[in-house]
Amino acid sequence: MKDFRKKQQRPKKSSLVYGREAVLQALERGDALDRIYLDQQLKDPVAGAIRRLAADRQVPVNYVPPARLAHFNVEGHEGVVAQKSKIIYQNLQDVISFVIESGQVPLFLILDGITDVRNIGGIARTAWCCGVQAIIIPDKGVGALNDDAILTSAGALEKIPVCRVNSLMKAVDELHLNGITVFASAMDATIPVAAADFNVPSAIVMGSEEKGIYPALLKICDTTISIPMQHHFESLNVSVATGIILYEAMKQRMHA
Amino acid sequence: MKDFRKKQQRPKKSSLVYGREAVLQALERGDALDRIYLDQQLKDPVAGAIRRLAADRQVPVNYVPPARLAHFNVEGHEGVVAQKSKIIYQNLQDVISFVIESGQVPLFLILDGITDVRNIGGIARTAWCCGVQAIIIPDKGVGALNDDAILTSAGALEKIPVCRVNSLMKAVDELHLNGITVFASAMDATIPVAAADFNVPSAIVMGSEEKGIYPALLKICDTTISIPMQHHFESLNVSVATGIILYEAMKQRMHA
Repeated sequence: MKDFRKKQQRPKKSSLVYGREAVLQALERGDALDRIYLDQQLKDPVAGAIRRLAADRQVPVNYVPPARLAHFNVEGHEGVVAQKSKIIYQNLQDVISFVIESGQVPLFLILDGITDVRNIGGIARTAWCCGVQAIIIPDKGVGALNDDAILTSAGALEKIPVCRVNSLMKAVDELHLNGITVFASAMDATIPVAAADFNVPSAIVMGSEEKGIYPALLKICDTTISIPMQHHFESLNVSVATGIILYEAMKQRMHA
Repeated sequence: MKDFRKKQQRPKKSSLVYGREAVLQALERGDALDRIYLDQQLKDPVAGAIRRLAADRQVPVNYVPPARLAHFNVEGHEGVVAQKSKIIYQNLQDVISFVIESGQVPLFLILDGITDVRNIGGIARTAWCCGVQAIIIPDKGVGALNDDAILTSAGALEKIPVCRVNSLMKAVDELHLNGITVFASAMDATIPVAAADFNVPSAIVMGSEEKGIYPALLKICDTTISIPMQHHFESLNVSVATGIILYEAMKQRMHA
């Protein structure tokens, strides 16, 4: 396996949009942008317009020192560099409405604290195979879903809708408002995954191996589920655990 | 993730045994050796003894040109370099006997064509969690299960017995002779994994994502099983697929 991180450090120029007007126009056109890097000292009406439009379009903005922008190695950035997105992020409510209106029973996957984009790619592949209709990720702490993520996903990231939200707490609220039960995977949960009922509209939250699910998020979930282990005090890799839980959900729905 | 392959190219001196007498003594003591590299032009009585003892102890021998040995960068190798093993490989029949005599129902995992040692490490972690008693791998095409493999396995490779065999065909014969049913995972199998009966003494063969299971090996397996997919013509990552199949086996046995 190649070391992808090195490649990620300085993105190709072709994957960037830079200069105030160019970025503003990209936002106005609704181009898929992963993230905007804005000079933290920039005071300019166009910068204000970029900020507002970015918030509107749910494109995260990082306020950075000029040195960070110099790192992109592009001339004429005028304090603004945007990274183009390889995948088109979807609005969560739009996806929920689409799934319900098309007569499907929602099965969503929420990734909390899973920051490695190739890990997300691998999980997306499994999710697509198991009939998940959308993946929900936070916009903080997660890098751009780049070529390597798409490669790891075996193309699944280009097929499955990804909703990037600025708060997973709010996303769970939104799921609840739409009548979707939110399951949280937790090692110490007493309900084995096979005993959970995934025939209802469902969303499943997976946390990172190191930290698990953020406590406040865990608290607002409806049910915690776990995978029974033959050897206790051992844990599965998050990608494998996700596979097993989604397999259970898929199996129940195929037999329903 | 770091690029482990570069590190692997030239192993540390401390992980090597070299010189004819030193390697011969290591074999006589029964030291855990991963592989012996022998100068292909070497004609020497000690070399003959090394060859015979290596065959006896099931340590693979590679006959290499002198330049390959020079690559190890050790002085005084006299045409023989052996790589110490981080894990102790077990004899298959010994493991089968031990498992049966201790009153357990065998659950073994056979990896065919899965050559990336970190992939094997990841699968070992899942296997250990799911109660697999031994992993069977071929001695050809698979690198030494090194520190990185052990790290990926979260230590599982130091807990779960690994049997390294010179022929998976013979290994399946040996399993059959011991009354063990051999299941093969194949995408086009008609029996869904949940319908297979893993309460009998079982071994499960997983093939690589690219090539699947070697046809002759597939032919001597007893049953082929598959994981039903929501989206057809898609395939799961081998590590995830192994997790799902072992989870099914574990679940059946917990409920039995």
